[in-house]
Amino acid sequence: MDALSLLVSALPDGVVVTDPDAVEKYRFDWSRDLLAGHPLAVVRAEDAAQVQTTVRWAAEHRVPVVPRGAGSGLSGGSTAVDGGIVLSLERMRAIEVDVECRVAVVEPGALNAEVKAACAEHGLWYPPDPSSYEICSIGGNVATNAGGLCCVKYGVTTDYVLGLDVVLADGTLVTLGGKRIKDVAGLSLLKLFVGSEGTLGIVTRVLLRLVPAQAARSTLVASFPDVGSAAEAVVDVGRTLRPSMMELMDNASINAVEDYRSMGLDRTAGALLVAQSDAPGAARAEEMTQIAAACELAGATAVFSTDDPAEGEMFVEARRLAFPAIEARGALLLEDVGAPVPRLPDLLAAIAAIATEHEVEIPVVAHAGDGNTHPIIVFDAGDPASEKRARLAFEAVMRAAIDLGGTITGEHGVGRAKKGALPDQLGPEVMALNQRVKDALDPHGILNPGAVL
Amino acid sequence: MDALSLLVSALPDGVVVTDPDAVEKYRFDWSRDLLAGHPLAVVRAEDAAQVQTTVRWAAEHRVPVVPRGAGSGLSGGSTAVDGGIVLSLERMRAIEVDVECRVAVVEPGALNAEVKAACAEHGLWYPPDPSSYEICSIGGNVATNAGGLCCVKYGVTTDYVLGLDVVLADGTLVTLGGKRIKDVAGLSLLKLFVGSEGTLGIVTRVLLRLVPAQAARSTLVASFPDVGSAAEAVVDVGRTLRPSMMELMDNASINAVEDYRSMGLDRTAGALLVAQSDAPGAARAEEMTQIAAACELAGATAVFSTDDPAEGEMFVEARRLAFPAIEARGALLLEDVGAPVPRLPDLLAAIAAIATEHEVEIPVVAHAGDGNTHPIIVFDAGDPASEKRARLAFEAVMRAAIDLGGTITGEHGVGRAKKGALPDQLGPEVMALNQRVKDALDPHGILNPGAVL
Repeated sequence: MDALSLLVSALPDGVVVTDPDAVEKYRFDWSRDLLAGHPLAVVRAEDAAQVQTTVRWAAEHRVPVVPRGAGSGLSGGSTAVDGGIVLSLERMRAIEVDVECRVAVVEPGALNAEVKAACAEHGLWYPPDPSSYEICSIGGNVATNAGGLCCVKYGVTTDYVLGLDVVLADGTLVTLGGKRIKDVAGLSLLKLFVGSEGTLGIVTRVLLRLVPAQAARSTLVASFPDVGSAAEAVVDVGRTLRPSMMELMDNASINAVEDYRSMGLDRTAGALLVAQSDAPGAARAEEMTQIAAACELAGATAVFSTDDPAEGEMFVEARRLAFPAIEARGALLLEDVGAPVPRLPDLLAAIAAIATEHEVEIPVVAHAGDGNTHPIIVFDAGDPASEKRARLAFEAVMRAAIDLGGTITGEHGVGRAKKGALPDQLGPEVMALNQRVKDALDPHGILNPGAVL
Repeated sequence: MDALSLLVSALPDGVVVTDPDAVEKYRFDWSRDLLAGHPLAVVRAEDAAQVQTTVRWAAEHRVPVVPRGAGSGLSGGSTAVDGGIVLSLERMRAIEVDVECRVAVVEPGALNAEVKAACAEHGLWYPPDPSSYEICSIGGNVATNAGGLCCVKYGVTTDYVLGLDVVLADGTLVTLGGKRIKDVAGLSLLKLFVGSEGTLGIVTRVLLRLVPAQAARSTLVASFPDVGSAAEAVVDVGRTLRPSMMELMDNASINAVEDYRSMGLDRTAGALLVAQSDAPGAARAEEMTQIAAACELAGATAVFSTDDPAEGEMFVEARRLAFPAIEARGALLLEDVGAPVPRLPDLLAAIAAIATEHEVEIPVVAHAGDGNTHPIIVFDAGDPASEKRARLAFEAVMRAAIDLGGTITGEHGVGRAKKGALPDQLGPEVMALNQRVKDALDPHGILNPGAVL
């Protein structure tokens, strides 16, 4: 019996998928990497034991395993590799809310939005909210240490992970952490697995810390003549205030959204800021006034505020639409670069200069309050010259972020798309340290090989 | 030339201390471990280069290195070992506040209180506040992932560490992270070093995230007939509110403090809760009213509130005095056990039962809102039977926490004092995983040997 047949026979019927058409859908994530490999099979695991069986088999036969949640990753972290297994967690999506402990016990395939909804039924809130929250999985969120829009006030995924069940590279299942809020017993392995992009182990259960439901929010939309003045407003607000959202759209992304779906955005604005306050009671109106004042001081030409949740959500939805809207314009290279917040104007200026130099369109949206930007490089997939210019711009944007003391990725992960630039940011010694930890936990290199390192 | 002479000659005059009287002071931390070893020497490093020189020398000669900040640790994490070096960071205490980036760049020997003060000059705030904040160092805070009183709302040390310079076991200096808020480039090594208690590397510089100055606070003190009813109030408050402090003192700790210094606490109370709200504007009064209502519902016999900062600080100071006050009563074994918040009443009941069973006094203070308690076992150091009972109680308290799904240490670290109980909490597979990471980063085991693992 060949190796794959052994795996098929070790798992229940239907868990191992080998039909080429069915497998095809699992080769790509949203980064649509044209170099995606052809896997042997897809394992659609139903429980941790099946994950263990798969990994044990992979370890024995030295077969690469690429774990995959909802496939909405933007850096190629779950792009298939030749001759490997795609280990899909999409069927493991149980959600249990421990209301007393304020903890959600979640399987990795559950979508972020499903977790939020389950918690909301009990008046509880799981804050991290990637723009893709309706279609991305918690397992993927943990793998990339995903951020989102409210993270400027409420932090990112790692801040909410209290516990993980992880299948290690030899198939051992370990439980890290638990339903306690503070725990420093032993090394911070829990935190090490968060953001490890499936290269150290495969998460089969997540304990998420919940907080009381978010207070009512007000929304502010400010138009600026250019991204620089908008960025100045962001820096100024951050000095004294803690808004619960501080998003930026540049003119190109505004117009891409309006072309895609009319959302009533000001097409003439050089940049828009979409900010929210959830300060309690009367403090909310006060915070909104202060944010508005900072915008005006920085040169905003119009400031609109609303306490109406539906109206506010419309603007946030417009911001979230930027990615699908820009995707409608062509093939994309997705950036996720960050910089110290006061360097945000410099980063945005550098991106604009790179767009000009390489003759590519680079609309930008940003979690501006965290200094985390998403320049989206648009190119014509049918035109090799256009693609080449886009790839040069992609490298140049990461280089600009590094030069400003920033990062090549704030929340999407390195995956395969940004692996080439990682040494530029980390340097040889930190790269070697990463590799040492990787080798210690996955000595045969079977877990997501080719990602990150 | 012997090995030590080589070290002395490699460092400037006065950096290496070998005088026995001077060395003696560096043998113990606050856990006063009677089994503390006799080190070869103390290195009082002035900069990262001297740390590198020391570690390189130690690696070459296979000499253990115990890093040490202010020596205020409570788990024996910086207890000296025979024939080793104590590497003191106390002279490295520069603090630089980057106001624009809202980041403090701090050397490890700087005290937590010094960092807070330097930031406050610029209207900025570094939240983590161990009870010992006036005498504990930031390096020690990073080593233990220290918590404190405001952490119930604002999180612990790891939530504020944006960057670290670390000297690795071979003397290599690496820089992890930076002044950007979000960064997922590579494995989360930054988070791995936080809480590693000097077993993976020696921190020589810390970048700390700062937030705008805390808003005005109101303080509430509620008396309860017993710890169980106080714990019920804590659980109830946590369901809907986010107080910025939620501390508990039991009757024994109240009376220990009053014996030590009269602070006006209610000596007859079975337990006190000291809570604070820093909700902005009018929301503060509302939150205080809701906390008071929860206390009354749980059976509080008296609830006192004040908006006066000085009066509020007096009660918080009384809470902070618990440790020195109880220390005045005898020799101590310090616990730091935690449980899921709803298990807090069970944990406190278990501790009381253990005190009765083993005939020892165990006053308890707690960061109750986080489920993190400090039972303090008092014994007569001159009476072997008393000490034996205390040690049995010490083990029993940790066992009780583990049985409730909790932890043997919430914020003090494992050090040497709790090392024996770590396998009971983690189990053999997670212990092996800890060891694998330790071996990968410190293959010769020279960094703080005997601590944690």
